Amino acid sequence: MVNEKIEQALKILKEKDVDMWLTFTRETASTPDPTLELILGTHVVWPSAFILTRSGRKTAIVGSLDAQNIRDHADYEVIGYVDSVKEPLLEILEKEDPKRIALNFSTNDTMADGMTHGMYLILEEYLKGTGYENRLESSEALVAALRGRKSPAEIERIRKAIMETLRIFDEVTQFVKTGHSEQDVQAYIRERMEERGLTAAWDPEQCPAVFTGPESAGAHAGPTKRKIEPGHIMNVDFGVRVEGYVSDLQRTWYFLRPGEAEAPQAVQKGFQTIRDAIRAAAGALKPGVPGWEVDHVARQYILDAGYGEYPHALGHQVGRMAHDGSGLLCPKWDRYKNLPYSKVEAGQVFTLEPRLTVEGHGVATIEEIAVVTETGCEFLSDTQESLILIG
Amino acid sequence: MVNEKIEQALKILKEKDVDMWLTFTRETASTPDPTLELILGTHVVWPSAFILTRSGRKTAIVGSLDAQNIRDHADYEVIGYVDSVKEPLLEILEKEDPKRIALNFSTNDTMADGMTHGMYLILEEYLKGTGYENRLESSEALVAALRGRKSPAEIERIRKAIMETLRIFDEVTQFVKTGHSEQDVQAYIRERMEERGLTAAWDPEQCPAVFTGPESAGAHAGPTKRKIEPGHIMNVDFGVRVEGYVSDLQRTWYFLRPGEAEAPQAVQKGFQTIRDAIRAAAGALKPGVPGWEVDHVARQYILDAGYGEYPHALGHQVGRMAHDGSGLLCPKWDRYKNLPYSKVEAGQVFTLEPRLTVEGHGVATIEEIAVVTETGCEFLSDTQESLILIG
Repeated sequence: MVNEKIEQALKILKEKDVDMWLTFTRETASTPDPTLELILGTHVVWPSAFILTRSGRKTAIVGSLDAQNIRDHADYEVIGYVDSVKEPLLEILEKEDPKRIALNFSTNDTMADGMTHGMYLILEEYLKGTGYENRLESSEALVAALRGRKSPAEIERIRKAIMETLRIFDEVTQFVKTGHSEQDVQAYIRERMEERGLTAAWDPEQCPAVFTGPESAGAHAGPTKRKIEPGHIMNVDFGVRVEGYVSDLQRTWYFLRPGEAEAPQAVQKGFQTIRDAIRAAAGALKPGVPGWEVDHVARQYILDAGYGEYPHALGHQVGRMAHDGSGLLCPKWDRYKNLPYSKVEAGQVFTLEPRLTVEGHGVATIEEIAVVTETGCEFLSDTQESLILIG
Repeated sequence: MVNEKIEQALKILKEKDVDMWLTFTRETASTPDPTLELILGTHVVWPSAFILTRSGRKTAIVGSLDAQNIRDHADYEVIGYVDSVKEPLLEILEKEDPKRIALNFSTNDTMADGMTHGMYLILEEYLKGTGYENRLESSEALVAALRGRKSPAEIERIRKAIMETLRIFDEVTQFVKTGHSEQDVQAYIRERMEERGLTAAWDPEQCPAVFTGPESAGAHAGPTKRKIEPGHIMNVDFGVRVEGYVSDLQRTWYFLRPGEAEAPQAVQKGFQTIRDAIRAAAGALKPGVPGWEVDHVARQYILDAGYGEYPHALGHQVGRMAHDGSGLLCPKWDRYKNLPYSKVEAGQVFTLEPRLTVEGHGVATIEEIAVVTETGCEFLSDTQESLILIG
C-alpha cells in the first residue's frame, strides 16, 4: 500500500507541476506527520527528510539507526547520517535544483500540517542564503490529492470498517433498553469490539460516543452515567479501524413511552429532516463542486424546516483517520480557512452528518459515508431510513 | 495527575519568570502536542488555546463541541467558541498583557515542539499589529521542567513498568535457545504482554526489538527471520506502558558454542566495558551537570577500552514517552541542538545505554534506568551485572 501511494505521489507532482515534495520531520512517535502513514508506514527518531521529485526520485535522509527500518518499509533510496541531516539535504537540493518545493505545512489542512514550527526554523536556518528558502510552499494541494483520492483497495478497507460498525449498531438495538446508562452502552460496544479484535477509529474514550436525552452533551464527549429514559432520543457516534482504515457513523434510536406505538410527531419530523437533508446533500455531492455548496444544501434544508443550524461541518473525509483532512463539506467560517472552497474530486470518501435538536427529547443525527464517483456519489453505508424504536 | 501537573506548571511559570504559557494546537489525534498529555489528558479537534499564567489563570479556549470533554478532564475555565478562537484569545491577551509569552515550539526539544508550522502562521496572523507577536518565545524551559521533574507518583508508575519488563526478560531467558529467530523471541514477548494486558512503550513493530549475531541491524529496526546461532550475542530493547508511564530497557544474552563453559574473552570484555561505562556515567549523573559531561564519561570509557564510539546519545529521559524529551545525555553533535548543554535536575529519569560491537559475535548493550536525586542518582532497574549465558 505504501509503495502504491508513493507512485501515486510521483504522478501528482507532475499533475500539479511541483518539482520536489519535501517532508521534513523527527520523533514521529510523539509528533507524527500524517503524510508519513501514507508514504512510509513507520516512524523515524532523528530529523529526517523524505524527498519525492517530479523526475521520479525517491530519497529518504534519516539517522543511521533508522536506516534499516526505512529500507524494510518502503522503496526509498536511503541515506543514513550520524551528525546532521543538513549536508545530504543541501546536496540533493543543489543536484535537483527544484524551482517549486512543496513542504509539509499548511494553515488550512491539518493532514498537510505535520511539520512542527521548530522543524521549520531548523530548515530555514539550513537553507539561509541558498535561495531555496524562497522556493518553499505548502504541500497541501499534493496531500489533498494523495490522501483524498482513494484507490479501490483503500475503499474496500473503509467498506469493511463500515460493515463491522453497522453490525455492532444492530447488536446495540438488540441490547439497549431504558435504564441503561450511556456508559452501559459504551461498555457493551467495547465488549463486541474486543470479541472481534477491533480497535476504535478515534480516541477510545469517545469512540463510541453515546448521547441520550435532552440534557446530553453536544458531541466530542465521552459517555456519562446518564440513564436512558422513555421519551429519549439516543444517538451513538462510532467507528472502527480495519487494516489501517476507519469508519465513522452515527445512528439514532427512540425509546417509546408507555402507550406509544411510534415516536412523537416532533421526534419523527426531526429525524426525517436529518435523513432528507442528507439525501439532498448527497444529490449535490459530485466532482467539481466546492465543499461549501454541499454543506449549504443540508444546512438550508434544516433551516427551512424551522430548526437551528448545526455548529459544525456537514461532513469530513474518512480514510486512515476518522478526520482525514483536506477538502471538507463545511460553511465559510473562519476556523475552516480555505477548505470550504476546495472542490470535490472523484475517489474522495465523505461523511454526511447534520444534526438538530428536538426539544425535550434529544439530538437527532445520522452520519452516513459516501464515495464520490465520476458523476455523483454512492453511499458506502446502508443508510438509516427510519428511527430505530425501542420499548 | 493532570491537575497536579497543571499546578506544577503554574509554579514553574513563577520560577522562570514567564507571564503566560500558551499551548496553541488543533486536531491533536493526528498532530498531537506532547505537552497536552501532561496538562490535559484528552484530545481537541478545533483550534484551541490552553493558557496558564503567572497570576494563576487556567483557561482553555476550545471549539464548542470540545468544551464539555475538556471540562470533564481538567480544571480549566473553559471558553467554547463556534466561529474562531481569535477573539477570545485576543481578549485574554489584552486583559493579562503578558510581557513574556512562552509558546509550544522548540528547535531543540521535540517534547516542547508540539505546535505545527501552520498553527504558528495562523497565530502570527491573529497577533499582527497587536505587539504580542514580539513577546513570543519558546516554552522549552517550561516543558523541560514540567516533563522532567517527576513527582513520586510518576516515578512509582515508571518503576512498575520497569518491573514488568524485567520479569519478561527473565522469562525470555527461560525460553530462548539457538535456532529461534529474532521474530520468535518477539512473538514470545508479545504473548507475555498479551497475557498481562501490557502495551508496548513505543512502536509495537520495534518493541520489543531483538538483535542477534554479528549481522544484526543497528537499532530502531524490527525483528527479522535471522536465527540465533551458537556464538551469537543477542540483545533485546523493550519496554511497556503501565498507567500511562513507560520503561525502556536492554539486556544482553550470549549463546555458548559446543564445549564453551563461558563466553569468549572478547565477548566478556565487551560486555564488561558496557557495564562499567554505565557505572562510571551513573557516578557522574547528578544535579547541575550538563548532559554532555555524563555522556562523555561513558563515551571516553569505551574509547579508552579500544572500541568505536556509539553513534547516539548515552541516555534520554523516560516518562509518558520512551523518548521523553528535554535534557539529554548526549554529545555536542548538531542534531542534538542545545540539549547537551541542558543541566541535569533532581527528579529526572534517564536511560543509560551505551553500545559497542564485538566483532564476529554481535552488539553488547545494556540499558538501565536511573532517577536523579538531590546528590546523585539511583537505579530504578536491577542492573545487569553479568552476561546471561544460554546453552
